[in-house]
Amino acid sequence: MKKLVLLLTLVIIGCGKAEKSIQISSKTKPVKEVIIDSLKHPWSITFLSEDEALVSEKDGDLLKVNLSSKKKKVIKGFPRDLTDSIRVVWRGDNSGIFEVRLHPDFKNNNFIYLSYAAKKPGKGSTTKVVRATLQNDSLTGIKTILEAGPFTREYFHYGGGITFGPDGKLYITIGERLFKEIDEPEMPIAQDLQDKRGKIYRLNPDGSIPNDNPDFGDDAVPGIFAIGIRAAQGITVHPETNKIWFSEHGTRQGDEVNLLKAGANYGWPIITTGGYRSRDYVPPTIEGATYANPVWYWQHTVAPTGLMFYTGNEFPDWRNDLLVPGLSRGSLWRFRIENDTIKSAEELFIDDRVRSRKVAQSPEGKLYMLTDEDNGKIVRIKNDTL
Amino acid sequence: MKKLVLLLTLVIIGCGKAEKSIQISSKTKPVKEVIIDSLKHPWSITFLSEDEALVSEKDGDLLKVNLSSKKKKVIKGFPRDLTDSIRVVWRGDNSGIFEVRLHPDFKNNNFIYLSYAAKKPGKGSTTKVVRATLQNDSLTGIKTILEAGPFTREYFHYGGGITFGPDGKLYITIGERLFKEIDEPEMPIAQDLQDKRGKIYRLNPDGSIPNDNPDFGDDAVPGIFAIGIRAAQGITVHPETNKIWFSEHGTRQGDEVNLLKAGANYGWPIITTGGYRSRDYVPPTIEGATYANPVWYWQHTVAPTGLMFYTGNEFPDWRNDLLVPGLSRGSLWRFRIENDTIKSAEELFIDDRVRSRKVAQSPEGKLYMLTDEDNGKIVRIKNDTL
Repeated sequence: MKKLVLLLTLVIIGCGKAEKSIQISSKTKPVKEVIIDSLKHPWSITFLSEDEALVSEKDGDLLKVNLSSKKKKVIKGFPRDLTDSIRVVWRGDNSGIFEVRLHPDFKNNNFIYLSYAAKKPGKGSTTKVVRATLQNDSLTGIKTILEAGPFTREYFHYGGGITFGPDGKLYITIGERLFKEIDEPEMPIAQDLQDKRGKIYRLNPDGSIPNDNPDFGDDAVPGIFAIGIRAAQGITVHPETNKIWFSEHGTRQGDEVNLLKAGANYGWPIITTGGYRSRDYVPPTIEGATYANPVWYWQHTVAPTGLMFYTGNEFPDWRNDLLVPGLSRGSLWRFRIENDTIKSAEELFIDDRVRSRKVAQSPEGKLYMLTDEDNGKIVRIKNDTL
Repeated sequence: MKKLVLLLTLVIIGCGKAEKSIQISSKTKPVKEVIIDSLKHPWSITFLSEDEALVSEKDGDLLKVNLSSKKKKVIKGFPRDLTDSIRVVWRGDNSGIFEVRLHPDFKNNNFIYLSYAAKKPGKGSTTKVVRATLQNDSLTGIKTILEAGPFTREYFHYGGGITFGPDGKLYITIGERLFKEIDEPEMPIAQDLQDKRGKIYRLNPDGSIPNDNPDFGDDAVPGIFAIGIRAAQGITVHPETNKIWFSEHGTRQGDEVNLLKAGANYGWPIITTGGYRSRDYVPPTIEGATYANPVWYWQHTVAPTGLMFYTGNEFPDWRNDLLVPGLSRGSLWRFRIENDTIKSAEELFIDDRVRSRKVAQSPEGKLYMLTDEDNGKIVRIKNDTL
């Protein structure tokens, strides 16, 4: 808001040069400015104020950072069942700390939500979501909201995306955890209603099950809202339609943007817009099943992650557009959406090629991005023409 | 210019609502409006005035159209060696009328330039460029500028793109005309300096050879400016750098945007960013050859055609961006360019999916697009938010 008013003032004061002012203001030039570095693969950021934010490091800690003073502080009391890092063995390890989100009424109840890879000695790991009370830079009163077992030895595709819906419910993405489709059981994990993995959940903020969830039958895992998920991370709410959108990784291509619908089956591994890791994998047929199509899929690998609808003022032309960062190509995608379909798609920062985990917006609308690097960064995306 | 002034007036008058005005003006919403239809696969358009334009129909005539009254008039006297249509046999036929461009001093000399597929009885066809005088809606004084023989039975990849460079010279793209790489001679056509096909030419406006062209040796075809071209159609000049850009079709993917450099070898068929139509084709090695990389290539098929740098006022954020329509996916691509590299790429009109042959701009900066259809159209691209 401040920026627009300032801009307008310039336009009005400088009437003689007004035309030039308008043109300059209208030609966007997104540029990056590193605000904080030395983060261990930051995964999520949520703002406590315009300058203070909680940042989860996938390979590190939950931090409180000050974007002005650049100070970082480790939040104490993180759940002790966080997986030990095994990424010294192989860099493909997906485990660690994932999402951090505030309860909508955080100011009064101090509740935050965290997802992470939890370990069980001798068993492996699984995706876990907890609620905690944040006080004096420490977590207390940790309560398990969702534990998406079984615990297994695989360390892929945890999911872990969390958002609050417009209905005040928690929406959580859980990946199917497999690396190769040939390891699927006869009824594939993401299609198996008795398996917690490969699903999207809708829960009350205290972890209980809403009574208006879609009906997947009596034998289904409680809380399931949608099935057929391979590796979804980013999940967010459209500011005008209030519909929920999520990103999903494919195997060979097949990266998607989806619109979340109650009771939908997103098809993995029965159908995919890409290929399979094992080229000779033949998925089973599931009688009677119907599958939701993605709103968008890429024909090359992008690895889309923590997406967001932009509602800031700094890039007026991006208002309500969906921003999707990618790990593989390292660019930022901007989608113009009308009537739940994608009208245009822009790939930004084409020649930067840095793994990008998430975009987020400050309370005043400043746009930030997290880079997934050993020396991970919080980058501000500024409009150089304003 | 008129639009911007109007907009500014609104902003200043409505100071109380100024913030809203700015936001509205800044959020672009490109929409299409059909201006003229019933064109037979229009290929090129060049403006005589804000309302009048010459339009070449690939499968029809050279026309004069009035964009206000919607009247069309056939320009008489088109060269008689224009190929007969064989597209009743197969729709893949590329032959017909291609580019129409005005001489920079058209107002005084009435010269226009045309490219088309010319026939020779019993021999086949080739790409030909002529200069003609346009008077009373007829062509007279036709002079051959370039005839890119040999005449062959193949009816693909004529090229035919024409632009005037900032140096006042004619730049012309000629395709290599083959459909399958396995039909290449030992020295591939586009690499053979004694073959006119698969090259970009630089000529004086009267067809003579400039004495400052790059030196390809005494045996080379006169007028060659660059080699290694497969199927380039669109060619245009950057409004600030004055550098020339051109589009090129690949076989399996490999569609490219290139920056034209004197003496460069664009590599076809020795190297490509895509694949070959014949998957087992192995190109020869040419000793000592070096190849220019494209500025951009797509990883899926786009079939990029008549590209243009936008300099209008209606989309201020697109100023000096490269617009590239595509035949295959039917969308319009917008590239932001800095220092001769592409910083961002936007795919517009994603769900329209109509074959698009060329974008062009009126003298006052209105943006138009030609659709490659049996019922071909001139479409105006308007900014719905202005």
